[in-house]
Amino acid sequence: MHRTQTRHVTVEEHRESVRRLLAPLRTPDRMERLPLLAALGRGLAADVVAPLDLPPFANSQMDGFAIRSADVAGLPGGGSELHVVAPVPAGAAPAELAPGTAAPIMTGAMMPPGADAVVPIEQAVPAVFPAPGVPATVRLPAVPARNFVRDAGSDIRTGELALAAGTFLGPGQLGLLAALGFTDVPVYRALRILLVTTGDEVVEPGSPLGPGKIYDSNATLLESSMRQAGLHVTRTGISTDRPEALAALLRRHAADVDLIVTTGGVSKGAYEVVRQAMEGHDVDFFGVAMQPGGPQGIGTFDGVPVLGFPGNPVSCLVSFEMFLRPALGDLFGCPAPRPAVRARLAEALTSPAGKHQVRRGTVLPNGTVRLEGGAGSHLVSALAHSNALIQVPEGIAALAEGAEVEVWML
Amino acid sequence: MHRTQTRHVTVEEHRESVRRLLAPLRTPDRMERLPLLAALGRGLAADVVAPLDLPPFANSQMDGFAIRSADVAGLPGGGSELHVVAPVPAGAAPAELAPGTAAPIMTGAMMPPGADAVVPIEQAVPAVFPAPGVPATVRLPAVPARNFVRDAGSDIRTGELALAAGTFLGPGQLGLLAALGFTDVPVYRALRILLVTTGDEVVEPGSPLGPGKIYDSNATLLESSMRQAGLHVTRTGISTDRPEALAALLRRHAADVDLIVTTGGVSKGAYEVVRQAMEGHDVDFFGVAMQPGGPQGIGTFDGVPVLGFPGNPVSCLVSFEMFLRPALGDLFGCPAPRPAVRARLAEALTSPAGKHQVRRGTVLPNGTVRLEGGAGSHLVSALAHSNALIQVPEGIAALAEGAEVEVWML
Repeated sequence: MHRTQTRHVTVEEHRESVRRLLAPLRTPDRMERLPLLAALGRGLAADVVAPLDLPPFANSQMDGFAIRSADVAGLPGGGSELHVVAPVPAGAAPAELAPGTAAPIMTGAMMPPGADAVVPIEQAVPAVFPAPGVPATVRLPAVPARNFVRDAGSDIRTGELALAAGTFLGPGQLGLLAALGFTDVPVYRALRILLVTTGDEVVEPGSPLGPGKIYDSNATLLESSMRQAGLHVTRTGISTDRPEALAALLRRHAADVDLIVTTGGVSKGAYEVVRQAMEGHDVDFFGVAMQPGGPQGIGTFDGVPVLGFPGNPVSCLVSFEMFLRPALGDLFGCPAPRPAVRARLAEALTSPAGKHQVRRGTVLPNGTVRLEGGAGSHLVSALAHSNALIQVPEGIAALAEGAEVEVWML
Repeated sequence: MHRTQTRHVTVEEHRESVRRLLAPLRTPDRMERLPLLAALGRGLAADVVAPLDLPPFANSQMDGFAIRSADVAGLPGGGSELHVVAPVPAGAAPAELAPGTAAPIMTGAMMPPGADAVVPIEQAVPAVFPAPGVPATVRLPAVPARNFVRDAGSDIRTGELALAAGTFLGPGQLGLLAALGFTDVPVYRALRILLVTTGDEVVEPGSPLGPGKIYDSNATLLESSMRQAGLHVTRTGISTDRPEALAALLRRHAADVDLIVTTGGVSKGAYEVVRQAMEGHDVDFFGVAMQPGGPQGIGTFDGVPVLGFPGNPVSCLVSFEMFLRPALGDLFGCPAPRPAVRARLAEALTSPAGKHQVRRGTVLPNGTVRLEGGAGSHLVSALAHSNALIQVPEGIAALAEGAEVEVWML
């Protein structure tokens, strides 16, 4: 049924609706195992528990001498003269360290049994390693037990949760999995999206631009956003403003995708092609208390989840960033959430009553954020010169220069 | 020649050295034209000037009525009753608006010649569009000229610089290029990197882990970082600690790559395979005043630029983020710089004398940053739970809880 409520919902309510719409897609058959590198930028589909300690064994944090700390104790300010024994290179399993001796040891090398501390080479006299095989002694200062020793398990212990299901797999996370000995990892498959831009006024870039026409930037803006977010995108080209043509197009593709995203045709004008094409399907159209990006559609078309974004490019991007991206990250661990940080406004702004405003801006290294362009949802050049979305919650009518705001880094 | 200076250089000096090392790679034959979507995540190789105005024509910012503002002036608080004429849908070239009339107009539709303002439908009485073809009037309030009109060129004008060479091409930038009618764009080709991890102590994930051995996480950590940064990576597998084997491996691959990156074997220990393999080549090894990641190598091997990163995983990542990534972004527009923001320390920290310290942390939405793990460069689990690098400049020995720091979002 085509509902015609004009109710207003909050940003948080609509984000939760989008999450609920997509939650049924998180099924076991949407998981796969991938080699670590192929899993870059995907979401972890199951908890990973550490199968070993990291570090796996106590090792030296410095190039220096492995010693028994008791051998250098007791001489305040003095230290001791120790016999230098065979060096311990990284990667070797060393013999037990005899009392009264010091073993040259390299960073990362296993502590010899019996040794409990390391003296960095810079603190030794002489401050050089003797040539191997030549009898030598070295004078070392008193150091406490565990000096410059990395204990086994001091980073993570066997059996501890290494990464939780839903974690975004970037370089750091994949590096940890490699350090734990894993070669592959369970991840969620990429969702398949049908992206349909509508509007009799939009034409494909590269075509002649007639009067009243604009080039379609929504498709490029959203497809690239979706690809960056790890989605598989099918683009249909621009649909005309004929509802029956759009409905036929959606029916043709619906079975092959997980989600349909349309742009345009969702507000209260006289020619709202998406609203009209969705007649007879379970799709709601209403206003979200947000500027830009207020008019939104949500529901299912032939059983396939559908989101109707508004038609202006900034509204499209804001809809994606405020609703779809967080829902995907929350459900599938991919994409990663936008980093939310605080910054001080470089200039004052005003915000419409009863709406959550999202402005575009550039966060500067001094901790301020400069507005890029006005509030208008057509300002694609201003958008292209922004690195952040400035969040102005509902109920705030104006903010002064210097006011602290939450910004999402793009 | 193998230089054996022990000079210390600053972080900024070494970053500039890396930039100078790579600058000769920015040659005209390293540019190519790509379709917009294929250029996602690449760097723009030439300035792009706007070939048209955006918006291309004056258009309505709202669904409402296009009018001549003079027709509704002069009645304080009252407005005027105007005859409703044929609607202006988006994408059409409208006829001139006759005096005393109001044309229903949709968001984004071209302003009819003669019209100079828009009254939103919500402010009309009645607040609905009449059925087309039925004679009707509408009562509209007084509004100023240019009310809810988006002027041609108000976002960007023909001939203005749309995007500068070196700009990173994300969704917003590609969206602007599409809006300007472009279908392809000149970008820099991806650099080809040879990545060699060294160390007798490291073994490939998936192999049995003998005593004193650790799994190689550097290769995964760096290859995924480099892929994310748009580089083409060739990985050789782990080199042994035999210098002649490493040198032979480098000679075999050098002609096919733009840059060699090694890990490990660059500090002052007794077994420094990278330093030894570079004997006879123009490579410097020295300390950068940074923790972690101090020991660094830089130069050329058989004429190919080479960077020698230290052997611990956190040191590798910090070396990549502090030196190579900024240099690539600066020279080739790709990757984008890490967003640098300000945050307040959730806990106190100390930093070694005379060094720039880079700590790992999590920036929280309240504007604070929590330390993840200690300063140790082996803490890959702590790294995997971080979303930011905390910058503690040289000369700062301690920072209190609540102190504001610069953080780079990962």
